Amino acid sequence: MTTAINGNSVPTGPSATLGIAVLGAGRIAGIHARSLRAAAGIRVVGVADPDRAAAEHLATILGTRPHERWEALLEEEGVDAVMICSASSAHAEQVVAAAAGGRHVFCEKPLAPDLAGVDAAVAAVERAGVVLHIGFNRRFDPSFSGLAATMASGRLGRLLQLRITSRDPEPPPPSYPRGPGGLFSDMAIHDFDVARFVSGEEVVAVSAAGANLVDPLAGAAGDIDVATVTLHLASGAIGLIECCRQSTYGYDQRVEVHGSDATAWSTNPLPSTNVMADGAGAVTVPLHRFFPERYEQAYPAELAAFLAACRGGEVSGPAPARGTDARAALVLAIAAQRSLTERRTVAIGEVDGAPGPAATATEGVAS
Amino acid sequence: MTTAINGNSVPTGPSATLGIAVLGAGRIAGIHARSLRAAAGIRVVGVADPDRAAAEHLATILGTRPHERWEALLEEEGVDAVMICSASSAHAEQVVAAAAGGRHVFCEKPLAPDLAGVDAAVAAVERAGVVLHIGFNRRFDPSFSGLAATMASGRLGRLLQLRITSRDPEPPPPSYPRGPGGLFSDMAIHDFDVARFVSGEEVVAVSAAGANLVDPLAGAAGDIDVATVTLHLASGAIGLIECCRQSTYGYDQRVEVHGSDATAWSTNPLPSTNVMADGAGAVTVPLHRFFPERYEQAYPAELAAFLAACRGGEVSGPAPARGTDARAALVLAIAAQRSLTERRTVAIGEVDGAPGPAATATEGVAS
Amino acid sequence: MTTAINGNSVPTGPSATLGIAVLGAGRIAGIHARSLRAAAGIRVVGVADPDRAAAEHLATILGTRPHERWEALLEEEGVDAVMICSASSAHAEQVVAAAAGGRHVFCEKPLAPDLAGVDAAVAAVERAGVVLHIGFNRRFDPSFSGLAATMASGRLGRLLQLRITSRDPEPPPPSYPRGPGGLFSDMAIHDFDVARFVSGEEVVAVSAAGANLVDPLAGAAGDIDVATVTLHLASGAIGLIECCRQSTYGYDQRVEVHGSDATAWSTNPLPSTNVMADGAGAVTVPLHRFFPERYEQAYPAELAAFLAACRGGEVSGPAPARGTDARAALVLAIAAQRSLTERRTVAIGEVDGAPGPAATATEGVAS
Amino acid sequence: MTTAINGNSVPTGPSATLGIAVLGAGRIAGIHARSLRAAAGIRVVGVADPDRAAAEHLATILGTRPHERWEALLEEEGVDAVMICSASSAHAEQVVAAAAGGRHVFCEKPLAPDLAGVDAAVAAVERAGVVLHIGFNRRFDPSFSGLAATMASGRLGRLLQLRITSRDPEPPPPSYPRGPGGLFSDMAIHDFDVARFVSGEEVVAVSAAGANLVDPLAGAAGDIDVATVTLHLASGAIGLIECCRQSTYGYDQRVEVHGSDATAWSTNPLPSTNVMADGAGAVTVPLHRFFPERYEQAYPAELAAFLAACRGGEVSGPAPARGTDARAALVLAIAAQRSLTERRTVAIGEVDGAPGPAATATEGVAS
Repeated sequence: MTTAINGNSVPTGPSATLGIAVLGAGRIAGIHARSLRAAAGIRVVGVADPDRAAAEHLATILGTRPHERWEALLEEEGVDAVMICSASSAHAEQVVAAAAGGRHVFCEKPLAPDLAGVDAAVAAVERAGVVLHIGFNRRFDPSFSGLAATMASGRLGRLLQLRITSRDPEPPPPSYPRGPGGLFSDMAIHDFDVARFVSGEEVVAVSAAGANLVDPLAGAAGDIDVATVTLHLASGAIGLIECCRQSTYGYDQRVEVHGSDATAWSTNPLPSTNVMADGAGAVTVPLHRFFPERYEQAYPAELAAFLAACRGGEVSGPAPARGTDARAALVLAIAAQRSLTERRTVAIGEVDGAPGPAATATEGVAS
Repeated sequence: MTTAINGNSVPTGPSATLGIAVLGAGRIAGIHARSLRAAAGIRVVGVADPDRAAAEHLATILGTRPHERWEALLEEEGVDAVMICSASSAHAEQVVAAAAGGRHVFCEKPLAPDLAGVDAAVAAVERAGVVLHIGFNRRFDPSFSGLAATMASGRLGRLLQLRITSRDPEPPPPSYPRGPGGLFSDMAIHDFDVARFVSGEEVVAVSAAGANLVDPLAGAAGDIDVATVTLHLASGAIGLIECCRQSTYGYDQRVEVHGSDATAWSTNPLPSTNVMADGAGAVTVPLHRFFPERYEQAYPAELAAFLAACRGGEVSGPAPARGTDARAALVLAIAAQRSLTERRTVAIGEVDGAPGPAATATEGVAS
Repeated sequence: MTTAINGNSVPTGPSATLGIAVLGAGRIAGIHARSLRAAAGIRVVGVADPDRAAAEHLATILGTRPHERWEALLEEEGVDAVMICSASSAHAEQVVAAAAGGRHVFCEKPLAPDLAGVDAAVAAVERAGVVLHIGFNRRFDPSFSGLAATMASGRLGRLLQLRITSRDPEPPPPSYPRGPGGLFSDMAIHDFDVARFVSGEEVVAVSAAGANLVDPLAGAAGDIDVATVTLHLASGAIGLIECCRQSTYGYDQRVEVHGSDATAWSTNPLPSTNVMADGAGAVTVPLHRFFPERYEQAYPAELAAFLAACRGGEVSGPAPARGTDARAALVLAIAAQRSLTERRTVAIGEVDGAPGPAATATEGVAS
Repeated sequence: MTTAINGNSVPTGPSATLGIAVLGAGRIAGIHARSLRAAAGIRVVGVADPDRAAAEHLATILGTRPHERWEALLEEEGVDAVMICSASSAHAEQVVAAAAGGRHVFCEKPLAPDLAGVDAAVAAVERAGVVLHIGFNRRFDPSFSGLAATMASGRLGRLLQLRITSRDPEPPPPSYPRGPGGLFSDMAIHDFDVARFVSGEEVVAVSAAGANLVDPLAGAAGDIDVATVTLHLASGAIGLIECCRQSTYGYDQRVEVHGSDATAWSTNPLPSTNVMADGAGAVTVPLHRFFPERYEQAYPAELAAFLAACRGGEVSGPAPARGTDARAALVLAIAAQRSLTERRTVAIGEVDGAPGPAATATEGVAS
């Protein structure tokens, strides 16, 4: 079975073979390549990256053809969906182009660096009627999705407090492209999405604090590397995000939800259950080093959810992030940055004065 | 050996028998009574409480005499030290009277409801040269004192982030006297002290958020029952306190210290190590219900530290809270309340414009 | 109210003041002294120890009189109960003498080194109608008693497997008197009691294995320091005890009960909840070093149970070990030793061929 | 590059494409199919199963051809290695046939139901010079392999005690073929291998106890479902295995190694880190239900080790089980069964009177 979308026939139904184009051949593309290899019912049409060697390397792993120009890849036969793993600055244009061609879109964050870009991309996707999946991978980790499901089940009662702890092992390398919003847009954006995903609520105001205590490069760029954001949720509940760009003990990702009837949390899964004890105490193995190890199981689950959505079937499991979620998270990052600068609580409406219809939709709220 | 203080001869030295007067015979006095029974080298001279029956009950347990008026008890022979466990409104007056008589003072929090009262009490104690011990009992819990010692040892490196989670099982009963500062002065005051005790730093600014989600009585009184306070520490590190007046899972008291070299935390000790597992998971026993159970071991340790200070000996173990600590915690509570009202970050100097010399001393800082 | 027992009037009822004689002033007596100081409604009549200095030291702590000869102490006025903390070899004689005088008896393990001695002591106690409490202190630890209560509640269903892990930090010092039965009688005797206490069942056969891997002195004495005992319980369930005389990580005491409906266990409470994490993992504080620290809370609870029994009141909480329990544990130790020597399963009936009526009573079984 | 083995050219080197034949299309073949899909550098030549529908189903998943007769599959072009996932009774014959044809062999346990069968299979493999990999998958689980590596590193000092806890969620269904050795050969065989793998030692004697408490079908077949085996290791250390065929709390697989310098253990990884707490305690998610979920990560690692061995490269990571390991585990199962029957300790030499040269080799011992 096929369905015509903007003149392109996209296969639907559980048994259809989907043609996938991979845009970008860097680290995150390599991570998705493992999931693509193991996935059933797909065909990888090609890999595009301006770095020819990178494209060739990944194409070999995927048993497909390399391209230098993503535009050329999109002209290949049988591209039903794209996975956008390219440089952040290219995302919005690629989303618009893919959607215009009737292709379903999996896009790593950020969808765009600013609200205008996000709105344009979302509009293109809505016009085309294709799937837009944002790579907020934590939604597919069982510890995060389990917590969201527990909250949604009502077993915790009314939400009173929410806390997200998020620590990277080390600051990004000097070569890492520093986005306009700094830590809030680059790192905390995942946490903003988690706050909405787990609570099932929108944020109405934020108050941020931050400091540059770790990385002189961040300081030189006017950025922070330690941050706290207080979230005022629509129900009146209060959320907290604490971020740090340095953690000697590994990649730390925790969430706690305090409700009127019960309290639930998720902590960090360990690479093994080994413990060794002597007179100095009992010591576990270290945490996973960073996201590729920590979310190793989340990536295949995320791909499966995208493929299922492309096929139009019922999707069980956690709700994937859609365009509205990408927008909401970016609004929060912008508001947090303003709060930090002005040392006061900032209402979301100050940043998002005239949200388009997508922003008020409830699609992205896990409820 | 005795030492003359303001005309009163106070026994000193490890072998001296100290005469103790207990002012107040309510719940916290009952808790200290257990420690007093087991303590060596002391004699309880009497118990005073306007509630005659309460005074008699506690006096029987302690094998001593009851009084209705605390002033009469202070006129008894051989009172070397007082333990002030009375209603909060009486604390400052009793401290001043006891100090004036050359008695060492153990005072439950708050020392006074406002800064003027605190300053008067501290001045009286300094004039008399007696010991003033504030009942910030958490300092004597091994999980808190161990964390402070780890921070002070330098093994964590520079402080980056601090977080204190503090949840009471339920709101205070309607009969509970509501102090002027609400949740910040009544409940979070312990957490403000913990922040200074564990970090070994002073706070320079705070930003608070809060909501009334639990107890209509609190709301009617203009108070909150869910709160978050962001602390800007002198080193630039950022602290967080999250409080809630309700917790179905018991009394929750945790601290986490994130340093540049390592990260340390304390959680909640459980009443027993029992776990039961079946197809629904593995379930621990519930947390301790509230502070009398949770800090059962801290109270005797706290009393021992007070008695050792009265005897003038070297005190090993955690630093007890002194007058400066009581003042600093109250300043933070006042600043947090102002931040909540004005929805902005408040510098400590705004509240504590002309601190007396005691407030800038470092005595109370665990460093 | 008093009750005449063999011509001695023992106070009964919750408000009576009990006169206690402490026989022995060594380590365990010092531990009980802390409980005695804090206990209400008692008077310590005296302390007896052939080591005069030890007796004087403990008498000072307890505010009572020292004796060198326990016989002299028993002739003092007002001795209602004795706490036997003397050398093991003196226990049986002291129990018989105290019981003959109508005194209630708290006796540290072992009641006697052999079955004949145990039977004589138990017979004396039964004739006198006094309380005999055996110092199997673990019954009063909340982790052990909680597990026994869970098993007794029926929530675990039928017992399938039981496991007890028991490790001392180090072998006893050369000066420690080596009893006739070695590790099984001296160390594992507590574990045999725990097996019966937690399971609520009798053991019908045992199979033991052991090795001398730690302490050459043990080897020279024909003893082992690593041991495993398989227990065949009356219901058909299988128990395991694993003991070791060395543990670099501290005093380790765990129990696991695997039932047909659920499984429950107890582990080791830690001195504090502190954890420190860095690139090497997350490390807890070390375990308690040995029994005085580990069972600090159990000793006062045990004393309270003894005092309550002396007063004839209803005893809530865990069932204390009585004479039958002392006997049953010793029988298991003897059977285990025989199994070790003969490398075969030994039925309890082989050791306990003609048990007296006490041994078949169910009094000591927590059911 | 190819190497001639018995007239068959087997590709070697890291880049060679290996042709794999899958013998058997049941549950364990389905598990390996997931690993085969994701593996690089292989081609699945075909799947054989007497159940035509099963063979077709698995062939579709693997994108290969189905066979009913495994002999026919072995005649296909390009079979370099076989994965034997068939009924246990067919294993030995298939190993001999595959080895005779110069194919490398991955064989699920048991290699054969008796020692004669094992010896014949091992001899065939040695004659052919091919790889024989036994499917003791736990060796590739990070919790087990980490523990073995810790023991081998010397950080634990001398081994004193070893304990393995092994509980299945439920007895095998009535249709499950009951092997000759019952629980010891069928279930505990994995634990015997783990004991050797983790300790790096051989067992010299065993003592077993067991009972039929769970499954009437087991009892009717003369089998047990609760068992304990005491292992006397070559160094004098003592090991314990406790098995049960029923566990309401899920699949339980733990190991503890108690050494003279430190103690280490592994427990059960949980499907997620979620915990929910209220007045009844804090409850984790349930354990993994059974081995397909518990060892989901071990199977791809195991396949990778087999493929690397086929290619003749250096294998990092845990030592795979070879023929000697299969033999040693079976010897232990036979000895345990004899000990159970005769209620005495059985020396391994009684069972393995005249071991062939393979049995005394140290190849399979992780040291």
